[in-house]
Amino acid sequence: MKKKIAIVGLGLIGGSLALALRGFEDYEIVGVVRRQATADYAMSHGVGDAATLDAAGALREADVTILCINPKDIVTFMEAHRADFKPGSLVTDVCGIKGAVMEASRVLPATVDFIGGHPMAGTEFSGIEHALPDMFRGAHYIITPRADSTGEHIALMGRMADYVGCKDVVNTTPAEHDAMIAYTSQMMHIIAVSVCDDEGLFTCRGFEGSSFRGCTRVADLDVELWTQLFSMNEGALSAALDRLSANLESYRAALRSGDVEALREKLAYSAGRKHQMVLGERSDDPYYV
Amino acid sequence: MKKKIAIVGLGLIGGSLALALRGFEDYEIVGVVRRQATADYAMSHGVGDAATLDAAGALREADVTILCINPKDIVTFMEAHRADFKPGSLVTDVCGIKGAVMEASRVLPATVDFIGGHPMAGTEFSGIEHALPDMFRGAHYIITPRADSTGEHIALMGRMADYVGCKDVVNTTPAEHDAMIAYTSQMMHIIAVSVCDDEGLFTCRGFEGSSFRGCTRVADLDVELWTQLFSMNEGALSAALDRLSANLESYRAALRSGDVEALREKLAYSAGRKHQMVLGERSDDPYYV
Repeated sequence: MKKKIAIVGLGLIGGSLALALRGFEDYEIVGVVRRQATADYAMSHGVGDAATLDAAGALREADVTILCINPKDIVTFMEAHRADFKPGSLVTDVCGIKGAVMEASRVLPATVDFIGGHPMAGTEFSGIEHALPDMFRGAHYIITPRADSTGEHIALMGRMADYVGCKDVVNTTPAEHDAMIAYTSQMMHIIAVSVCDDEGLFTCRGFEGSSFRGCTRVADLDVELWTQLFSMNEGALSAALDRLSANLESYRAALRSGDVEALREKLAYSAGRKHQMVLGERSDDPYYV
Repeated sequence: MKKKIAIVGLGLIGGSLALALRGFEDYEIVGVVRRQATADYAMSHGVGDAATLDAAGALREADVTILCINPKDIVTFMEAHRADFKPGSLVTDVCGIKGAVMEASRVLPATVDFIGGHPMAGTEFSGIEHALPDMFRGAHYIITPRADSTGEHIALMGRMADYVGCKDVVNTTPAEHDAMIAYTSQMMHIIAVSVCDDEGLFTCRGFEGSSFRGCTRVADLDVELWTQLFSMNEGALSAALDRLSANLESYRAALRSGDVEALREKLAYSAGRKHQMVLGERSDDPYYV
């Protein structure tokens, strides 16, 4: 019998993983979904090799389980299915918060190895119909192993990340992940929605360019998902927003002062920082936004 | 003799226009530059049909002059060359501030028609070596004609915009332009540099994804250009930043309150606004960032 990877939840990320992981080593990719319509869509669009509504049955046969559902659903799913995971198997997830998920994973039996995961990819869309096989191309794949995670499972995570096209695997702690993500991801989403709250949003048509589209692209977000991500990381996100507020206020003051030379110096400082910060940007990548 | 378009300044935008306008109707495209090296580069890379360091000579023969230099240089150039522009010709510019430029254009003789212009395109790079023939594809081309601008010249602006690939021509007033641009463009740049001022910038490598790249892309900006754009539009930009600050603070308060339902409602409101705001985004466009 082929080895199996169960992907729980075939949304944007789970669906993309199911597309991208097809053919990985000798694994069969099995989607676990809640609605028959999703299973039918998956099978008619090549999203994985099989799809089932029987979570317990799939977990019992899965050598790897990847939880691609919302953070709070991950917590309740692990509680509900704690006895269903195959002994010796690897369980991982893809969500944007790691502290709370790693904590919740303690409910799993000692026979199961849980490694937190967060591929830094996505688009502004949701759902299986927006899944893309090259969603992960060039992205960082962050993992947060437990102290007792096996080298075999960590290596397997690395091979999966490589197979789906990720640039690298970043091995870190849940606390470090959550602090960094508050700045690099969550804050970007708070900025985007705040810009869209501006009274000028609907009257600015005809005046928007690439910088506006780039900054606001993610504002049409998955409300439930981001409510959970923000509220489960309130401390780190609030700290990041405090720093943003101070940095913005510094620019507002320089502008209001009318001191053009001071403004020029500030801009030279900030632009120089960005110039140093080579992000490995990929201009040929439609998801590089 | 062929009709001539003089493009003053072959930087990122001037160079891209010179590339994109080649073959437009029966015009010869003449680049006006300050350094022989730029003229040589232009000629060896097909950036326009000719290049010269003789501004006065080029202007006297130009049926259309497009000023593609910094705002303050536009002001001094028009003063210095007021007597050089060909009578009956169209003079326009491409810079991101229109009030001050339209005001400065009063120095021109009545025989010359000045129409302010602002194609909403660009990348985070500067200089002729980053010029691209399809820079303007899908962009808005904003124009601010004078009350006495001729229909012939306004139509000519439209044909040029269409030829270089712009999506549409937006005809507006300098005041409206400057107020809108403060929000859609200048504020995006202030956000980008403020995000890059964060203490976490250099330690976040490995944790950045597409939203971070999209928001911060423009932070490595042309310092002199943006110092001028910001300081010449201080009132409108400060007002936009005041609104941003209030909208960000509202999110910070919702987050700090711990009221998850209130946060969910706010996010649903903002995401709904973005969802309504169809920007004509072009996922096939490498410059759509």
